[in-house]
Amino acid sequence: MVKTILYIATSLDGFIARPDGNIDWLTSIPSPKTGDYGYAELLKNIGTTIMGRKTYNEIIGFGVDWPYIGLDSYVVTSDKEFKIQSPKTYLLTGSIKDFVAKIKSKTNKDIWLIGGGQLITTFINEALLDKMILTIIPKIIGEEIPLFADKPKESNWNLLEVKSFDTGVVNLTYEKTD
Amino acid sequence: MVKTILYIATSLDGFIARPDGNIDWLTSIPSPKTGDYGYAELLKNIGTTIMGRKTYNEIIGFGVDWPYIGLDSYVVTSDKEFKIQSPKTYLLTGSIKDFVAKIKSKTNKDIWLIGGGQLITTFINEALLDKMILTIIPKIIGEEIPLFADKPKESNWNLLEVKSFDTGVVNLTYEKTD
Repeated sequence: MVKTILYIATSLDGFIARPDGNIDWLTSIPSPKTGDYGYAELLKNIGTTIMGRKTYNEIIGFGVDWPYIGLDSYVVTSDKEFKIQSPKTYLLTGSIKDFVAKIKSKTNKDIWLIGGGQLITTFINEALLDKMILTIIPKIIGEEIPLFADKPKESNWNLLEVKSFDTGVVNLTYEKTD
Repeated sequence: MVKTILYIATSLDGFIARPDGNIDWLTSIPSPKTGDYGYAELLKNIGTTIMGRKTYNEIIGFGVDWPYIGLDSYVVTSDKEFKIQSPKTYLLTGSIKDFVAKIKSKTNKDIWLIGGGQLITTFINEALLDKMILTIIPKIIGEEIPLFADKPKESNWNLLEVKSFDTGVVNLTYEKTD
């Protein structure tokens, strides 16, 4: 079954960025001695990414090559004039639910929900999220953009896997309960 | 060395209680098939507990027997008339730093920081917290009393141990970096 997967790093206090979008606290974490933080494994079956407008602007603002080469990427915004600046990237101005249903019926690859917090809550509230891989960074940053913004509905999750790395990072993987 | 240890349960979204203090989302989690969530192990070397005023009132409000029998418990408040309703429980109206130093010099048992979020942040900001055992409940509750309240200072932590339970609960144990 095609899944929608949130794969995202969070501080110990549940934040995904500083208030201005800065993720220096995240990029300062070294890679593990062997392998990576689950990125290669995740990418094996991803065909599509989806992200909010602010998250897209942050990624473009890094000034690096577009990280999602080869994937179809969708930016959720109500602004039909929003300027796309990366390859194979499209606006998603309509229903997210319909979009996810379409991707799931038309492809056999998973959807990676990149963020940010508001879009994550939309996915949770509309029961569109099948799996979460939370990469827990061993830092308290004390200032927020929250991982789960805008008070999502209550939801229960099954723990699928726990993986810790020599850098003190932990990946917690959950799937939706039925 | 005598340690100050935070041992607390948090929802996946980093909350320790609903806005009114309710912890039904926590008490609905069953015990693991064998053992417990680290409570017995923790208690082996605890001599003192410390908690904030609101947390104390919540615990008293549960209407159960005082859970910290045999331990010296301290309630942090500026109210010198605050009414104690449990055995071996004392007010702490002065310096928390001095208090911790005194306990560490006078006993060989650890201090359990019970909560809540504001007192936890005080301990982090004054570099009084040596260890954290975070019990991650596999639920998003979407409403808050935050684990780390009032924007603590940034801090880095070493991952000591990861333990998962058949109920989907995960204990993450960190110690302070030097």
